[in-house]
Amino acid sequence: MTKPPVIGIDFGGTSVKLAVVEGENLLTGIQRIPTQDFDHPDLLIDAIVDAIAAIRVTHPDVAAIGIGVPGAVNFFTGMTYNLTNVKGWTAVPLRDIVAEKTGLPTVIENDANCMAYAEWKYGAAKGCQHAVCVTLGTGVGGGLILNGGLFRGAACAAGEIGQMSIDLHGVPGPYGNTGALERYIGNRQIVGMAVSTYREHGLEPPADLSPESLAAAATAGDAVALEVWDKVAHCLGFCLMSVVYLLNPEAIVIGGGVSEAGDLLFNPLRKTLANSLTAECFNDLRLVHARYGNTAGILGSSAMAAELV
Amino acid sequence: MTKPPVIGIDFGGTSVKLAVVEGENLLTGIQRIPTQDFDHPDLLIDAIVDAIAAIRVTHPDVAAIGIGVPGAVNFFTGMTYNLTNVKGWTAVPLRDIVAEKTGLPTVIENDANCMAYAEWKYGAAKGCQHAVCVTLGTGVGGGLILNGGLFRGAACAAGEIGQMSIDLHGVPGPYGNTGALERYIGNRQIVGMAVSTYREHGLEPPADLSPESLAAAATAGDAVALEVWDKVAHCLGFCLMSVVYLLNPEAIVIGGGVSEAGDLLFNPLRKTLANSLTAECFNDLRLVHARYGNTAGILGSSAMAAELV
Repeated sequence: MTKPPVIGIDFGGTSVKLAVVEGENLLTGIQRIPTQDFDHPDLLIDAIVDAIAAIRVTHPDVAAIGIGVPGAVNFFTGMTYNLTNVKGWTAVPLRDIVAEKTGLPTVIENDANCMAYAEWKYGAAKGCQHAVCVTLGTGVGGGLILNGGLFRGAACAAGEIGQMSIDLHGVPGPYGNTGALERYIGNRQIVGMAVSTYREHGLEPPADLSPESLAAAATAGDAVALEVWDKVAHCLGFCLMSVVYLLNPEAIVIGGGVSEAGDLLFNPLRKTLANSLTAECFNDLRLVHARYGNTAGILGSSAMAAELV
Repeated sequence: MTKPPVIGIDFGGTSVKLAVVEGENLLTGIQRIPTQDFDHPDLLIDAIVDAIAAIRVTHPDVAAIGIGVPGAVNFFTGMTYNLTNVKGWTAVPLRDIVAEKTGLPTVIENDANCMAYAEWKYGAAKGCQHAVCVTLGTGVGGGLILNGGLFRGAACAAGEIGQMSIDLHGVPGPYGNTGALERYIGNRQIVGMAVSTYREHGLEPPADLSPESLAAAATAGDAVALEVWDKVAHCLGFCLMSVVYLLNPEAIVIGGGVSEAGDLLFNPLRKTLANSLTAECFNDLRLVHARYGNTAGILGSSAMAAELV
């Protein structure tokens, strides 16, 4: 029996995205509500509730709502904490507010966990018992599938791969966690690494550097850009090596904008893992690109919502 | 209904230890079979089987056997791999051999996993859903309790905390894993760290340095010895910080000989974690000393054996 459609919602950096989803299929286009248009969490939530009401006019059979939110989210209590890109958003019981205002069962989860859930349920980690999922973007997020389910930890705070340290003598981290991975391979840090690498070679860095332009340059044969991707892969690889020694997963799934570099990232990453893991841990390990890009949050949150009905 | 007693067996560095166990109680003293007395795995296994037979004369009701073995062990297949301290021990199907020769249901598990299991079942992590257990000795071992059970990973290789890297520019690791924790705070490495720390201060290191003598010296007020323990705690703390960001456990249990340093280790370790974790991850985290010392392997393996009957 097919489950009824649900609404998947993804709180992104600049907008809240909504779509009607059935299984892994989007039944509607993605509707966007720009977050900066709202001065107060209540107003943004009202706009989301209004959008849900409008969707239900055309899709009266939607049976539940799933919401992916960046940062700290408690799946069990439905609380969300600081949303740095929404003014005044601290400690908002988002799940219960939305559930009450819509009358629909609602689930809420961290966005990286939604990505992991989508990849496990439908995508690159389908069928895995144990998979480590990483998103590479402005920040570095992670989600863990362990023993055939999303692993949340004691306070729904597990999976923070970006906060793991790769160097106890390294750069400052945001929480005193010197050497935090995110401070090496976040979007801006990759650009910073590129600037200093060009300069080390006595070259003026290209203007408007970005992970995309660095990937294009490397593909076109720019030796410095290639060196930068090797460095990024080495940092990421060292962190993932530690993750593999700890969790011995079947698969590592890598998504997010930076992963669009493809083989430029994956080839040296695979090499770093091959050179630093035991055969036992490496031989059956799959290193794969995430299947979903921008829709991962919607698909993961909607997959969790579908389990409510 | 009380379960029948079982035999717990622990392969240690110099001897194989056996005892009859009921729940968390040893019904016999610990019998030791020195491993170096045997030239071939078959001979050692025969000696173990003979010891089991002798035990069954006085304890005819023993109903199962649990065996803890260092290094790579596959719980599901019953295979053991390299036992570096037993000549010629490679790829031995120990579980099936013992089960066949004794006619008793037999279970086999990695020794650090046995320690974690004992601490979770009866000891310092009792009642925890998520606990990280670490043993500090010649090597650094680990075992994970996740979602209320021992977590083994895809190839029964999870929990290798000692192989995680704390410094991608650090000392060589055994598998290309530069900066492996074990290469900083294994027994011998602590002694090496102490030697160089005394010399940095222009002092001749005491003869016969060991973690025990360093703990005694620190307790007696030796500033250099205190500094060494701070360094050890800092290395361990950085690795555990990463583990906590990844797994968000309720408890970290630390055992093994080096943990006998007690507050000399635990105080700076707690401080490192407090200074590098988010409040979310740190506030409810318990950092505790393992309850069991030498008997952890026997108790953990016997607890698993008891589940076979």
